[in-house]
Amino acid sequence: MDERTLADLGEDDLLALIIPVLRSYQTEHAGGRLVVPPGDDAAVSRVGPQADGCAAAPVEVVATTDAMVRDRDWRDAWSSGEDVGAKVVAQNLADVAAMGGRPTGLLVTLVADPATTVEWTLALSRGIGAAAAAHEVDVLGGDLSSGPSGVLMVSVTALGEMDGRAPVLRSGALVGDVVAVCGSLGLAGAGWALLEQGRPDADPEAVARQRRPEPPLADGPSAARAGASAMLDISDGLLRDADRIGRASEVCLDLSETALTPDVERLTPAVGRDLARECVLAGGEEHSLLATFADRDHVPAGFRVIGRVVAGRGVSLDGIRQKPRGWDHFGASPGTAQRT
Amino acid sequence: MDERTLADLGEDDLLALIIPVLRSYQTEHAGGRLVVPPGDDAAVSRVGPQADGCAAAPVEVVATTDAMVRDRDWRDAWSSGEDVGAKVVAQNLADVAAMGGRPTGLLVTLVADPATTVEWTLALSRGIGAAAAAHEVDVLGGDLSSGPSGVLMVSVTALGEMDGRAPVLRSGALVGDVVAVCGSLGLAGAGWALLEQGRPDADPEAVARQRRPEPPLADGPSAARAGASAMLDISDGLLRDADRIGRASEVCLDLSETALTPDVERLTPAVGRDLARECVLAGGEEHSLLATFADRDHVPAGFRVIGRVVAGRGVSLDGIRQKPRGWDHFGASPGTAQRT
Repeated sequence: MDERTLADLGEDDLLALIIPVLRSYQTEHAGGRLVVPPGDDAAVSRVGPQADGCAAAPVEVVATTDAMVRDRDWRDAWSSGEDVGAKVVAQNLADVAAMGGRPTGLLVTLVADPATTVEWTLALSRGIGAAAAAHEVDVLGGDLSSGPSGVLMVSVTALGEMDGRAPVLRSGALVGDVVAVCGSLGLAGAGWALLEQGRPDADPEAVARQRRPEPPLADGPSAARAGASAMLDISDGLLRDADRIGRASEVCLDLSETALTPDVERLTPAVGRDLARECVLAGGEEHSLLATFADRDHVPAGFRVIGRVVAGRGVSLDGIRQKPRGWDHFGASPGTAQRT
Repeated sequence: MDERTLADLGEDDLLALIIPVLRSYQTEHAGGRLVVPPGDDAAVSRVGPQADGCAAAPVEVVATTDAMVRDRDWRDAWSSGEDVGAKVVAQNLADVAAMGGRPTGLLVTLVADPATTVEWTLALSRGIGAAAAAHEVDVLGGDLSSGPSGVLMVSVTALGEMDGRAPVLRSGALVGDVVAVCGSLGLAGAGWALLEQGRPDADPEAVARQRRPEPPLADGPSAARAGASAMLDISDGLLRDADRIGRASEVCLDLSETALTPDVERLTPAVGRDLARECVLAGGEEHSLLATFADRDHVPAGFRVIGRVVAGRGVSLDGIRQKPRGWDHFGASPGTAQRT
């Protein structure tokens, strides 16, 4: 009898147990349909019949799901219902973009204490509706369930299309590639720290980014077209997510401290140099895109080079191996969460 | 300021507020893509480019989502992790079938108290994996989040394909149609009552059906091919769900007490005649298919006629208007839930 609880395992270790169980049931029927199985930012599967005598490529659909839980993923004192709706949509659409996909639809599940106000619920709906519309994404459905006292949980599934592009996995980085990022680093983490410190006015942009991430969604397909060898969105911190590409690709992503200096300097006035550096390296919920490309000439507009791929496994900074710190859903208890 | 809480509104009333908010953000971009908007058992949208000069029909994808919450939708004393996994998959696939769709994939979100055992989590995974494989459905992905103490919540999104069939809505029933059902009535409700009474041995089949529903998934596409004018799966009770078709179609579904007699008699030995009748009329979680067809000749194998469509709005029994009783997620508090 296995007496361990989820608190004894990290999220990644738990997934390493669950995914093989789920895969063990998948029989040959799935062979032709599943292009990218669970384990990456999103899965990709083929839909529709292979039309005989038709030149049309099969349609590849991207699917991913991600939830937010009150007092784990947001605090009512810091985020409105609109903020929560915008954020849960953004983080899901980012996972679609990180495969090189174009988001097209989403579904929402709300599990709520019956004492939740109708007002908050409609604010959440407005946040979801506006964020979806801003990216031409359809709201395809939802589910409402009552939950225990005090519980508020929003889960979103996002769907997208590959439009003929090859999905960009975490596992394709090769030694010699360059590492590049699209979007900001550490802003959301610094915003969290400022809210925690009660000083949101010290950097309103960072706080706004914490409340409502702005993933560079169109740059995901751009990176795929440019031939990105690996990609993900930075949801749990640069080091942790770079480590994920490193381990999946069996290479080491060596980041350059110098290349990250502007990001650290951007945040230093508000939070000080040490915390700014920590936010850049390990701040979660940024949802910027981290990708690898064959060389500098292949890096598309919007991305900037922050390192290179070397032999090894994981992540390093100027050649020094880094422990992949950042956010872990089960490893960190809420009081001690190191989100920054 | 709206001071109402979710407990003040029923699930249907709440959806009637939320859906227009979500729709208000949907702009013309969605026009060509969304075939069936949220509000039915599942949404249907078109994916892929319209291939020029190609005879292939556009691919229509069905999507739906449904969650289960511990101590609301299951009790650990009655249901194993495998049972919960099997049930949450079954009820989602039933929603796909109820549109006339063929389920193809699903995604799972687990929000769990970190004190949840790894053992339970793996049992849940086995239940999900086995139920998916039994219907040739791919597990496309998932998300793990920690939740507050005591909380355990599983949310599933199911995807499917229409294979060229027209989606069967709730709103297409016409006066003169016959009403037919495919699958059992009241078994899951009687199983719940027996578990509640501590007498599961009185009808092991009913208890098994409560733990693991067996929706007649292949009969959804059959009904669509046979030209069903309206369809849904009975998740919240025959009267409540018949009323939903009635209201959506602006007709009245008049059910025949005589036609339901065999269903009542099936359950009478275990739970007595009165409760048996209540289970047949208002028992939830059965996930049998309720559909309307132009006439008896169009009713496909597997379905049996239990009524007819008349002028009016809602549901009646031998001509007597019925209040749509059954399960409501927010209207019923857990202690007083009338699931049977």
